[in-house]
Amino acid sequence: MPELFTVLPPHEALHKLFTHLAPRVPIEMIDTARALNRVLAEAPIARSPLPAFPRSTMDGYAVRASDTFSASEAIPAYLTVIGESPMGSAPTRSIERGQALIIHTGGMLPDGADAVVMIERTQKITDTEIEVMRAAAPGENVLQVGEDVKPGDPLLPIGHLLRPQDLGGLMALGITQVSVAQRPRVGILATGDEVIDPHDEPQPGQVRDVNTYSIGGIVERAGGIAQAGGIIRDNYEALYEAAQDLLDRSDALVLSAGSSVSVRDMTSDVIEKLGRPGVLVHGVSIKPGKPTILAVCDSKPVFGLPGNPVSAMVVGDLFITPTLWKLQGCDRPPLRQTIRARLTHNLASVPGRVDYIQVKLIERDSQLWAEPVFGKSNLIYTLVKADGMLIIPIDANGIAAGELADVKLF
Amino acid sequence: MPELFTVLPPHEALHKLFTHLAPRVPIEMIDTARALNRVLAEAPIARSPLPAFPRSTMDGYAVRASDTFSASEAIPAYLTVIGESPMGSAPTRSIERGQALIIHTGGMLPDGADAVVMIERTQKITDTEIEVMRAAAPGENVLQVGEDVKPGDPLLPIGHLLRPQDLGGLMALGITQVSVAQRPRVGILATGDEVIDPHDEPQPGQVRDVNTYSIGGIVERAGGIAQAGGIIRDNYEALYEAAQDLLDRSDALVLSAGSSVSVRDMTSDVIEKLGRPGVLVHGVSIKPGKPTILAVCDSKPVFGLPGNPVSAMVVGDLFITPTLWKLQGCDRPPLRQTIRARLTHNLASVPGRVDYIQVKLIERDSQLWAEPVFGKSNLIYTLVKADGMLIIPIDANGIAAGELADVKLF
Repeated sequence: MPELFTVLPPHEALHKLFTHLAPRVPIEMIDTARALNRVLAEAPIARSPLPAFPRSTMDGYAVRASDTFSASEAIPAYLTVIGESPMGSAPTRSIERGQALIIHTGGMLPDGADAVVMIERTQKITDTEIEVMRAAAPGENVLQVGEDVKPGDPLLPIGHLLRPQDLGGLMALGITQVSVAQRPRVGILATGDEVIDPHDEPQPGQVRDVNTYSIGGIVERAGGIAQAGGIIRDNYEALYEAAQDLLDRSDALVLSAGSSVSVRDMTSDVIEKLGRPGVLVHGVSIKPGKPTILAVCDSKPVFGLPGNPVSAMVVGDLFITPTLWKLQGCDRPPLRQTIRARLTHNLASVPGRVDYIQVKLIERDSQLWAEPVFGKSNLIYTLVKADGMLIIPIDANGIAAGELADVKLF
Repeated sequence: MPELFTVLPPHEALHKLFTHLAPRVPIEMIDTARALNRVLAEAPIARSPLPAFPRSTMDGYAVRASDTFSASEAIPAYLTVIGESPMGSAPTRSIERGQALIIHTGGMLPDGADAVVMIERTQKITDTEIEVMRAAAPGENVLQVGEDVKPGDPLLPIGHLLRPQDLGGLMALGITQVSVAQRPRVGILATGDEVIDPHDEPQPGQVRDVNTYSIGGIVERAGGIAQAGGIIRDNYEALYEAAQDLLDRSDALVLSAGSSVSVRDMTSDVIEKLGRPGVLVHGVSIKPGKPTILAVCDSKPVFGLPGNPVSAMVVGDLFITPTLWKLQGCDRPPLRQTIRARLTHNLASVPGRVDYIQVKLIERDSQLWAEPVFGKSNLIYTLVKADGMLIIPIDANGIAAGELADVKLF
């Protein structure tokens, strides 16, 4: 019964949705090399140390540090060079007192050596003799075994979103496969007797489907896979059957509702029938996007979006995006870039409601200005022309021209 | 001759690279529905108006505005309801003086009507008669033909990175295919006698390849396709042949150089032989990442990265990322999120050099703090443990503990 639901502020609405969700989508093993932007479902553990052998961080000579303790420019230490540490294999010789081995960055220290003297701190006397002009401390210019990672170290936590350096770090330890959350499959149904496939030529009164594609983009951006379910006529039975069928094959469902009141009520009734607990939120204190429906049906999130493409985008960004990261088990989803800009016009608002105003960013007098993209509420291209959304907080009466405000970039 | 090149500040180095690049990678036509994050190579033009018919933005009654001009709560206007505008087709009846037609949000206005009265401003008397309690202005609650987009309007500029709402906006006009820049293919070669495939078990002195995967992630993030060319021994002929072959099949080439001085020089010599003008920058005033090589060979960018994985990441982020967007013709690439945080420790720097310090972000006393992740320069996991890079500008001596600094999130 939608009448029982009161309009909630956006963060309370999202919290209510989250409390009824299943913990996470199923997991899968994939190649680490292809795991960028995926969310870890198990915490990888180091099975071996990194580095696995003592490694030089400089080009120079592997030495016993104690042989150099009194060395200075005035009174250098003299060492005998007995060979070179090869790249990619262990040195065949060990270092005795008074000896040194040529070593390159990344090379393996020979037995007996505990430091590397930078080549710049030495002087070559003959092919087999060098002067060392500064004392080296034990361990200097050397990475010890396990100094980067020790066997058994947890490398990254469950819920971590994999970045380029994480892929490299895992491969460094031979972890060539990782367990990640599956990409959530999100079914998207467009409804409305007036909506047609964009490939078709509209007749008078018909409009092409927009939300399947803009919401599909939002889904893809949040790590999901958009599954377009097509366009359904404004008919309860047809909508229910299509919704149930698509929900069965998806991890989440989006109904881009017809915009008339009667059709909105139908959407709510259909969602109620898809499973328990059903509709949790019917109305959010945001503009645009107030007639939003948030539901959980058999542990899966279901979204009833306003048909207005601008509202649908705002609602998608506010609710679908965080829900998809949550389904993947990601606790710290990527932040959308937010910047501060000065408003070019006075903007009025109503306390108790969060306003999202489409703005263009303009540089003027070496300052960043946010200029509202005015236009009636149903215009699609106000969104296309905008660089971001300016947010008027829930407790504000509005923002005056010249004031600084947060702009969330698209 | 590398000796002739002086160390350049990062922005000058990038500028020098850009001046020698070919304008753009080839273009291709793809489905708009799959064009998220692609860069437009041709500017799509509207072939039809949006909306294509006068549309109601409200649920209510289509009327002649002049019939309501004197209406008020005290003295309402009385209108005869002659039917309903169907969703998805043109109304079959036109409106005469004193008449009204039921209309839904998104419905088409009948001939003769020039405004819509919201249902909330009316009172139903009988099934065929309503009272209108407020005057409607001509055009009120109506989207006129072409009010959103007019035929011939340029919709988005060349070089625009496609966002979710752009896909929706293009589909609204039946533009189901778009011309975009091909994703640049970036060949990546790892070099070094000590480097092995991560699937293999390292012997003493050997390390697994890291940079192919971390740089591959950077390439993918910037819209490119990483083409791993494998691991090449430190041998001039072998490196040259592999590099030439991979460059022929790629739009850009990355050589992750061995880290010893002799190998770095070999990388530079190989790049010089790949094509004109060859090496443009040999050394950038950044830390880490100073021994970076930027080159253009036969109009294609070629990068010689330091072997140190941390340096390679910094250089990749600073130079490979903007170059890939540039190759796609994108003038306003997505901004990496940058936030301000207070530094937990004093950090020294040298004027004339930009320092990139790996930091973890910590919330303390409801403020955001940036804590440097200390560790020797070649540790891979300092990067994995960090949330971002703190930037010490080129003219600074360092940053004191407690001061605010910019942190570029990974």
